[in-house]
Amino acid sequence: MSKPVDSAVSTVRAYIQDHREAFLDDLAAWLRIPSVSAQPDHAPDVRRSADWLAGQLARTGFPTTEVWETAGAPAVFAEWPSGDPQAPTILVYGHHDVQPAAREDGWDTEPFEPVVIGNRLHARGAADDKGQVFFHTLGLRAHLHATGRTAPAVNLKLLIEGEEESGSPHFRALVEAQRERLAADAVIVSDTGMWSEDTPTVCTGMRGLADCEIELYGPDQDIHSGSFGGAVPNPAAAAARLVAALHDEDARVAVPGFYDGIVELTDRERELFAELPFDEERWLRTAKSRATHGEAGHTTLERIWARPTAEVNGIGGGYQGPGGKTIVPASAMLKLSFRLVAGQDPDLVEKAVAAWVAEQVPAGIRHEITFGAATRPCLTPLDHPALQSVVRAMGQAFEQKIRFTREGGSGPAADLQDVLDAPVLFLGISVPSDGWHAPNEKVELDLLMKGVETTAYLWGDLAENWADAS
Amino acid sequence: MSKPVDSAVSTVRAYIQDHREAFLDDLAAWLRIPSVSAQPDHAPDVRRSADWLAGQLARTGFPTTEVWETAGAPAVFAEWPSGDPQAPTILVYGHHDVQPAAREDGWDTEPFEPVVIGNRLHARGAADDKGQVFFHTLGLRAHLHATGRTAPAVNLKLLIEGEEESGSPHFRALVEAQRERLAADAVIVSDTGMWSEDTPTVCTGMRGLADCEIELYGPDQDIHSGSFGGAVPNPAAAAARLVAALHDEDARVAVPGFYDGIVELTDRERELFAELPFDEERWLRTAKSRATHGEAGHTTLERIWARPTAEVNGIGGGYQGPGGKTIVPASAMLKLSFRLVAGQDPDLVEKAVAAWVAEQVPAGIRHEITFGAATRPCLTPLDHPALQSVVRAMGQAFEQKIRFTREGGSGPAADLQDVLDAPVLFLGISVPSDGWHAPNEKVELDLLMKGVETTAYLWGDLAENWADAS
Repeated sequence: MSKPVDSAVSTVRAYIQDHREAFLDDLAAWLRIPSVSAQPDHAPDVRRSADWLAGQLARTGFPTTEVWETAGAPAVFAEWPSGDPQAPTILVYGHHDVQPAAREDGWDTEPFEPVVIGNRLHARGAADDKGQVFFHTLGLRAHLHATGRTAPAVNLKLLIEGEEESGSPHFRALVEAQRERLAADAVIVSDTGMWSEDTPTVCTGMRGLADCEIELYGPDQDIHSGSFGGAVPNPAAAAARLVAALHDEDARVAVPGFYDGIVELTDRERELFAELPFDEERWLRTAKSRATHGEAGHTTLERIWARPTAEVNGIGGGYQGPGGKTIVPASAMLKLSFRLVAGQDPDLVEKAVAAWVAEQVPAGIRHEITFGAATRPCLTPLDHPALQSVVRAMGQAFEQKIRFTREGGSGPAADLQDVLDAPVLFLGISVPSDGWHAPNEKVELDLLMKGVETTAYLWGDLAENWADAS
Repeated sequence: MSKPVDSAVSTVRAYIQDHREAFLDDLAAWLRIPSVSAQPDHAPDVRRSADWLAGQLARTGFPTTEVWETAGAPAVFAEWPSGDPQAPTILVYGHHDVQPAAREDGWDTEPFEPVVIGNRLHARGAADDKGQVFFHTLGLRAHLHATGRTAPAVNLKLLIEGEEESGSPHFRALVEAQRERLAADAVIVSDTGMWSEDTPTVCTGMRGLADCEIELYGPDQDIHSGSFGGAVPNPAAAAARLVAALHDEDARVAVPGFYDGIVELTDRERELFAELPFDEERWLRTAKSRATHGEAGHTTLERIWARPTAEVNGIGGGYQGPGGKTIVPASAMLKLSFRLVAGQDPDLVEKAVAAWVAEQVPAGIRHEITFGAATRPCLTPLDHPALQSVVRAMGQAFEQKIRFTREGGSGPAADLQDVLDAPVLFLGISVPSDGWHAPNEKVELDLLMKGVETTAYLWGDLAENWADAS
């Protein structure tokens, strides 16, 4: 904290300080637009949010800003070439739509009336994701100011979608349609978080996702359990046995081939995970659960970040109403999802699951299995030069050692990785207490400004240290 | 078929023949009353049915006929003492309410407009159970006529309930309240069936029933399977594992103590089952199933009649709607039922199940188990003198060897057995094709008259061969 800062840092900090108030006013104006993509009556607000952002990006200096239509809500694209033919091309991803919010859900203030209380800005979208998109604007201005450039040191592109909170239903189609204009050497996703305010971190990967629904059919209709039970196979029992067989005694997924090809954690990565100040009791409270349970030989962080899983998301069959009903049910269904890690191919996983299910289902039970759209895992190697740049830029802003996390979840970032064939990096400055999707969402102003500062350093570092990107 | 019949038989047959037409007219009048206990708007019809039956039993000669109120629909009680202090007391059970029926359900005729087509009487209740209750009236008159008696050879009581098709919710309370007036040496239930028209049979027992609902609680709310899945226990998986653990590899129930005390089938009983002309392919069609599956070492008939079972009637947890939802669900539930055989005590079975479930549920999952009202099994030993009388009376009527079956289901007969501490016998003349609970229910007129004839012989045989009953 007391180490001397160089002149570039002091220039950046002074610039940010000078523009902080206007920056926060602008962000507040955006947060006032209730761009709730899941609620059809807010569709005009989502469009207004896109238009507002496109205007703001133009005011920031982007020579190209466009609102891109999709079959759903519009996305915003902006582009600012570096002018340097050697410069790498970076695509920043975020979203301008927000989760639903209403005062009566438990908000202490109006969710779409931003208000600063102490050192926090409260509003729906403050952290997820408008605040994180927005720090790129002032950060870019500070970068230009501190370097004296008239264009960014990298070819900068922004793609800010409008349907992330609705599951990004048209995102992949958009990326595929705009593949050439979105082409980049790396993607920077600003829609994640850090470990905590005291422990700044960079996320290095997200898990992939495959999911399926399995229908199991027994008798042609519910039949009397007194007349027939105990003498014919029961599809609800068959569904249950499938689930029970899904994991072995070590809580490893028992589907043959499931682990084929996975990139195992290195000792160094396990050490880095173990260095994080993880409090399992506290984590359990966040998980609203009473015990940990998972693959033998792995810590909780390894289980949620770096190990593939099989989870029962839903199971149903037979009588669900009050009291009892003495039947052998006609059918049962299972909804399973599989989190995937680097090295796993969703297609192969789906084939392995389908073959395993077919083998497990007993005689007399017919089954159908349907897979949803899969998401690939993404993982940035720790020694990737772009990741090193992000770590250095963050370190300079936070004046702290930057540690590494991963995301257990899966997201549209993987679509960018797949379609654009570019590595995905994560630059998120939110913390778990920010209340994503919850009442009283907020962003810590100090962290928000650290986000601004990080991006002020990032483009120069990338241009300097990743010359061979293209 | 061609063996000479004795004079008593010819007297009985002549009497029945003379009264057949009036008997069928009376039955048709009763069948016209739509005594559907499950439909509140038919409550007046159920009452009308009870009043009609009480009047008919009075006309039959019963000196005592009463309509007994319950908290629901009324039952009918009738009593006709023998006058002989040595005579056994027999209570006949049946029901006067019927299943719902409407022409548009697939009936070829009006369900409450009885019609004879060929040798079949079609109407709702023709077989289940008005026809079977009603054959006792003419049978009793034939008995008196052929023996020259003015009162039955046994002390005869009838209890015809009005809520059987609604699950007999007030039946046990009624039997308990009227325990003394219902006291009997044996109960004869006329609400079952025979193997087939060609194979007349006597049912010697019904299975008992215990059932429970198990709620399993994991996280306090559904949690994100990406953030937490694979690291905390999943209650839907726990429910599934309970089901999978419920049976061993031989499809035997794996709950310790479950089989304690059961009366095993004798070799003779297994031989008698095996003698029945059982067509497994045909049975599977009736079961609308594609394979048999059950306890190793037992035939299908043994499994459904004489072996206890554990069945999943319902399972549910997590997301059940269309598509997927990546959650670890907060809770899951199971509905299990257990068919019980002679020697099993429902209380002990419930204790064993509760203890086993508590042991199986993994750390971090809380559970609650709730048991419904249990029904005891009932079984009449093959050498019971009253059963021998039923077999002889049926044999005389059918002029055929009478074989033995059991019922896989469970019924209010067990309440009579328990409260009155009397063995339960089954005298049913319906056949599987009669369409109980289905459209186009019918009774075969020839079989109906065999029921009349059987009861014409039964009371004398019982009085003669079971003098030590009381």
